[in-house]
Amino acid sequence: MIRTPTSRAEAQELDRTDALAPKTEGFNLPEGITYLVGHSLGPPPATAQTRLLEAQADWATGLVRSWNSAGWIDLAERTGERLAALIGAPAGDVIVTDNVSVNLFKLAAAALPHARRYALFVEEDEFPTDQYIAAGLGGLSGAEVRLLPPGGSFDALTAGGVLIKSAVNYRSSEVADMAAHEREAQRHGALIVWDLSHATGVLDLHLASDGARLAAGCTYKYLNGGPGAPAFVYAAQEIAAKLVTPLPGWMGHNAPFAFDSQYTPRGGATRFASGTPPILSLAAFSGALDVFEGVALPDLQSKARALGAIAIARAQGMGLAVLSPIEDAARGGHVSVRIAEGYPVVQALAARGVLADFRAPDTVRFGFSPLFLRYAQVWDALDVLDEILTSRSWDAPEFHARAKVT
Amino acid sequence: MIRTPTSRAEAQELDRTDALAPKTEGFNLPEGITYLVGHSLGPPPATAQTRLLEAQADWATGLVRSWNSAGWIDLAERTGERLAALIGAPAGDVIVTDNVSVNLFKLAAAALPHARRYALFVEEDEFPTDQYIAAGLGGLSGAEVRLLPPGGSFDALTAGGVLIKSAVNYRSSEVADMAAHEREAQRHGALIVWDLSHATGVLDLHLASDGARLAAGCTYKYLNGGPGAPAFVYAAQEIAAKLVTPLPGWMGHNAPFAFDSQYTPRGGATRFASGTPPILSLAAFSGALDVFEGVALPDLQSKARALGAIAIARAQGMGLAVLSPIEDAARGGHVSVRIAEGYPVVQALAARGVLADFRAPDTVRFGFSPLFLRYAQVWDALDVLDEILTSRSWDAPEFHARAKVT
Repeated sequence: MIRTPTSRAEAQELDRTDALAPKTEGFNLPEGITYLVGHSLGPPPATAQTRLLEAQADWATGLVRSWNSAGWIDLAERTGERLAALIGAPAGDVIVTDNVSVNLFKLAAAALPHARRYALFVEEDEFPTDQYIAAGLGGLSGAEVRLLPPGGSFDALTAGGVLIKSAVNYRSSEVADMAAHEREAQRHGALIVWDLSHATGVLDLHLASDGARLAAGCTYKYLNGGPGAPAFVYAAQEIAAKLVTPLPGWMGHNAPFAFDSQYTPRGGATRFASGTPPILSLAAFSGALDVFEGVALPDLQSKARALGAIAIARAQGMGLAVLSPIEDAARGGHVSVRIAEGYPVVQALAARGVLADFRAPDTVRFGFSPLFLRYAQVWDALDVLDEILTSRSWDAPEFHARAKVT
Repeated sequence: MIRTPTSRAEAQELDRTDALAPKTEGFNLPEGITYLVGHSLGPPPATAQTRLLEAQADWATGLVRSWNSAGWIDLAERTGERLAALIGAPAGDVIVTDNVSVNLFKLAAAALPHARRYALFVEEDEFPTDQYIAAGLGGLSGAEVRLLPPGGSFDALTAGGVLIKSAVNYRSSEVADMAAHEREAQRHGALIVWDLSHATGVLDLHLASDGARLAAGCTYKYLNGGPGAPAFVYAAQEIAAKLVTPLPGWMGHNAPFAFDSQYTPRGGATRFASGTPPILSLAAFSGALDVFEGVALPDLQSKARALGAIAIARAQGMGLAVLSPIEDAARGGHVSVRIAEGYPVVQALAARGVLADFRAPDTVRFGFSPLFLRYAQVWDALDVLDEILTSRSWDAPEFHARAKVT
């Protein structure tokens, strides 16, 4: 564990010994920006930009032949193989496909017949879309849908249904105990579909050894895959072969160019591919993964939590209520604090080059992507927050104007 | 109707008076390529490349702020509004989202409760994925799934279920009579989900006036949106408001940033948006639509059919069996001919710069995108086919080697 610095000098000292420090050079962030929104949309690694331009050139010159000559046809699969290493999964258990909503739907639908009870469970403070998807799937399939109180999912596993559960809560940043959940699920014939959106690329995940069987996640947050980059599905080999996807697209077919009327799924997680993936977006994400080459996941996690600990200590020093777990081991890559006037405060921070985000009614989230942030930079960003709060400079009319997306 | 040229000189004369001829300058096709695969993957219009680079720059400099500042948040909706004009639909009835498979699933699922019979119908010679999706949805929802004999869909409408039907058959290029189908469907309480993949961007479509209520389609064929570019959903205003999507993602929510636990769908077709769209791919497609500005759909259709008529007349002259309708009005933008040794013939054509595609066991498809092809160019391509067949130059070992994608 990295000791939380208590001064800028100590933060600088951590930068000097940071194994991940060279990775910051892989990003071309604009001058003067401290980007604490990597939990929302990661910035482009230079390699993502390079691969995107290559894909564009392949489209222009190779044209339809690029499905073969540029390897588009199995790009989703090859990218999934590389991503697998970042979640502690065997290479064949991950496929890049669709968006998180669609993937949660496919996995939960495929899981229902294999759970002891034909029912869907989701906590009330889960990411709203996860709740909507459970409701949508319940309406179509006839499965019972039960909303659980916040934190109630562990107890609900005894009922033996299908639980949709975030590995890291989008709001609080609280980490779920994956291994304990899976043990309890196994015991009671329940299945869990993990939402890894706020966990992948920042935590030291061990899906296989934690016994996780099903998961989906997005790639545009800590993985820096680009806006709306295609999401992924994880399905453990031992269960994948039994699963029937409700969305059998041609990319999940065992012989997509045979044009059979009968659907024969591919062997493992790849059966959850559906239609043609968006190659340009996928190429950018594939390039973004280059930045993770040689990165040890424990280093990633330690740095993210150490950066978060700076924010927590400084926020507490300003008298702010911290909504995220204080204990490092219980926390993901972002830290949420309560600021009653959070919206204008976030605008005032942005005007000073510090980007954070606001979630109504009063939550400000700071994301600590460990590959492009430096310790001293985070220290300085908290200085800016302190100044803005002390001077009440956020209370200027320009910081209250609302945009479509906050 | 354009008279079919009987000589290269007559073809050149058609080029001189072609209203769409200036559009060819909007594409940067490689020298020496005659691209007859626009029905599979359209080439990039220069405007698509420009918009893709802009989106990349917005990602790099605007970062997460680009959801507002670069208009990403409603890009799918604005792009859908522009696309609507190309299918004869009101602007608000189209949303760009997901892929065709997912969209057919969403629409058919939403349609089921509103059809007289809880059943799905699809013809056996439909695009295989459309059949898979019907089967997948049937398995999940309990709806009866019935495969129809080729051409049997019109008669099946009397049964009052949900029919998934291509406007243009992917293999034969046969055009369905949309208005007649819809009249029959209305009469019997049936609903039709049209697959417009091989129709959009090449035919003079009139979804609204033909009474079409539901449709999906891809954007990477005649629309030149890029490999795997996001697909679209059309839902007519009068029915859209009654429909419940089984995949209620946050982009289809009426107030996506309220983070409500309850799902409140948006007003019309936009409710069929699901998760975050792949912005880079979407931006390229959005740029590709610029090429269609000022294009009259009847001109598009007439030229595509005139080019197809050249291919049909020439192929018949070579003694080849034409698998597509001979009558222009019954045919889409591509022409299929039977060539027993189709695979090596297509390879031999490619070696001479003429790109076509092969569908096992013996179908060669030629696509006639009217925006970048010239009449004389198509005439010359058929000369090349004639030479290859006459000389049997296709029977060289290098033309028999198989690639992953044929």
